[in-house]
Amino acid sequence: MNRRKFLTSAGVGAGAAAATSFAAPAIAQSQPQVRWRLASSFPQALDTIYGTAEMMAQRVSDATNGNFDIRVFAGGEIVPPFEVLDATSEGTVECGHSASYYYVGKNLAFGFDCAAPFGLTTRQQNAWMYEGGGIELVREVLFDEYNIINFPMGNTGAQMGGWFRNEINSVEDIDGLKMRISGFAGAVMEKLGLVPQQIPGGDVYPALERGTIDATEWVGPYDDEKLGFHQVAEYYYYPGWWEAGPQLTLYINKDAWNELTPEYQSIVQAAAAEANIRMTARYDTLNPVALRSLISKGTKLRGFNREILMACYKATEELYEEQVETNDKFRAIYEEWRKFRDEQYLWFRVAENSFDNFAFTADARLEQQEDN
Amino acid sequence: MNRRKFLTSAGVGAGAAAATSFAAPAIAQSQPQVRWRLASSFPQALDTIYGTAEMMAQRVSDATNGNFDIRVFAGGEIVPPFEVLDATSEGTVECGHSASYYYVGKNLAFGFDCAAPFGLTTRQQNAWMYEGGGIELVREVLFDEYNIINFPMGNTGAQMGGWFRNEINSVEDIDGLKMRISGFAGAVMEKLGLVPQQIPGGDVYPALERGTIDATEWVGPYDDEKLGFHQVAEYYYYPGWWEAGPQLTLYINKDAWNELTPEYQSIVQAAAAEANIRMTARYDTLNPVALRSLISKGTKLRGFNREILMACYKATEELYEEQVETNDKFRAIYEEWRKFRDEQYLWFRVAENSFDNFAFTADARLEQQEDN
Repeated sequence: MNRRKFLTSAGVGAGAAAATSFAAPAIAQSQPQVRWRLASSFPQALDTIYGTAEMMAQRVSDATNGNFDIRVFAGGEIVPPFEVLDATSEGTVECGHSASYYYVGKNLAFGFDCAAPFGLTTRQQNAWMYEGGGIELVREVLFDEYNIINFPMGNTGAQMGGWFRNEINSVEDIDGLKMRISGFAGAVMEKLGLVPQQIPGGDVYPALERGTIDATEWVGPYDDEKLGFHQVAEYYYYPGWWEAGPQLTLYINKDAWNELTPEYQSIVQAAAAEANIRMTARYDTLNPVALRSLISKGTKLRGFNREILMACYKATEELYEEQVETNDKFRAIYEEWRKFRDEQYLWFRVAENSFDNFAFTADARLEQQEDN
Repeated sequence: MNRRKFLTSAGVGAGAAAATSFAAPAIAQSQPQVRWRLASSFPQALDTIYGTAEMMAQRVSDATNGNFDIRVFAGGEIVPPFEVLDATSEGTVECGHSASYYYVGKNLAFGFDCAAPFGLTTRQQNAWMYEGGGIELVREVLFDEYNIINFPMGNTGAQMGGWFRNEINSVEDIDGLKMRISGFAGAVMEKLGLVPQQIPGGDVYPALERGTIDATEWVGPYDDEKLGFHQVAEYYYYPGWWEAGPQLTLYINKDAWNELTPEYQSIVQAAAAEANIRMTARYDTLNPVALRSLISKGTKLRGFNREILMACYKATEELYEEQVETNDKFRAIYEEWRKFRDEQYLWFRVAENSFDNFAFTADARLEQQEDN
């Protein structure tokens, strides 16, 4: 047995920890100074989402004694919100924080890096990205061409279906409806006669108030309440089946990335993953409080019925089939993604879903039993 | 306008990124050398759980150019599996990776740092820990006394209810059943006549084979398949309502922690959070494949029926009430935890649960429709 190994294995006494944890004399080493700019697609008012980039930047700064400084700019400050991908690609900024489905105009396949109709829940999206080959697949098929390295960084959880001025009781009620809705979902809903509207965030409230649009989706209770949609639309629908687990992504210009030391690259990766899990934790903590508040203000909560959901599901399947036939990048990702999704759905029905279905309502049912 | 600010705001041209991202001349700085030992409670055979500590150690090493080296030891190598808390507390090792419900013998309240019956799902546990004050609360009430700093580091997702030699169709079938089950859940199940057995992992298989026990719970398909329980028990029940989102925790001896530079402390925190989200991703990716494999080998999947679940829920409520009356530490955590849990349950019923209930079975129902 070699002596060093012996010492290590044998040293399990009370003082052993101290012996190994004392810092050795400091060795002079280089910690390069790096200054980056991060263009966010989001306004500071969306504090949970915008704050996720700041959380990451803070972590990177703390982990490097301030030597690696990432300054976060809100959407429009230095780059327009929907041009973050291009700005990062071109090196206008070293990195960006955005929702990839803003770029479905380039290719619908960008949706898979964020949210696709009847897609992955938050946990399933993380599973696919980190362990199912998702990060590598979207990098190869989508981001390589843009000279971008991608890391998941934030997820809102399942979003709400949005605010409607009138109740939606059947598929017919969707026909002719003017709704502010994101691109991927809009393409599905058009098959049911909905007229999708692209309206910048700040203009949605007046459009809904005036009746220029009949409905809008945004995020969930916490963000929606701040925009005040409950003052101009009575019905708040769920679920947002087009956004079951929308992921935000950290885009990094590949040249900027390659200039980093391996240590700095490593710190960025860890910080992005940390920000990813913490953003969801933040939403999950804030949404229940906001939902309660909205209901106390008169908001009427409504679930899309099965007929409507099934019609939307069918329309989604049609769209997927059309894309697979005509869009190579879409097909390349979709085939892997769909296989993964179907496995996830099967598994999550077992322990997770059966627990949720019982536990989330157990208290109410117990009270009912005791009343009888 | 100050000149520096002007330059920063104006510098949005093609070459601007390069100008700020070039590394400044390296500044000689200290990166202390630190060597830590991490005692895991888990065997290497549980590669997802054991591997989570290794993932964290690798990240810390990469982020510090190898200067901060954490060596991971499997359960029993230098510290017995169930003594990781004490060994970290005493400084025998600088840190440990364990499941806090192993320590319910010290106080049942340790369950809240891992899993409690009808408790938080994985996402809800993360929300409570990171944003709901959970980390700070369990630190104050439980870990301070042990001179330990705690960080969540890994979560298996909802576990299975375990392997049964016979079907369990009613509450009466639980009476007299000998089951290997963890302490907190065992205390609940005793109220229904179950006889909980504490058996080390390696001895469970022969005990189940010989009929010394009638049932056992372990983790989920991926880990369970490796232990071969399907060869000696036919029925695989779900959900494991006592472990809806069991968290593992990184314990750090406070003296060792205080010796770290702020940079190293920051890197450890980020690495622990990254390992936390990635362990769940790993299980979510591996479990569906293993479940399919188990079913192909003859395993019969069974859900606990509503009568059984409701009896278990009632027994859990009784136990909680008893503890609140007699156990100060339990009460101090429980009151906050319960409030948080109830809010989470209400919110998750809306967008998340309604999406899951439709989407996870939509494909099957669509096929059915088309067949008719």
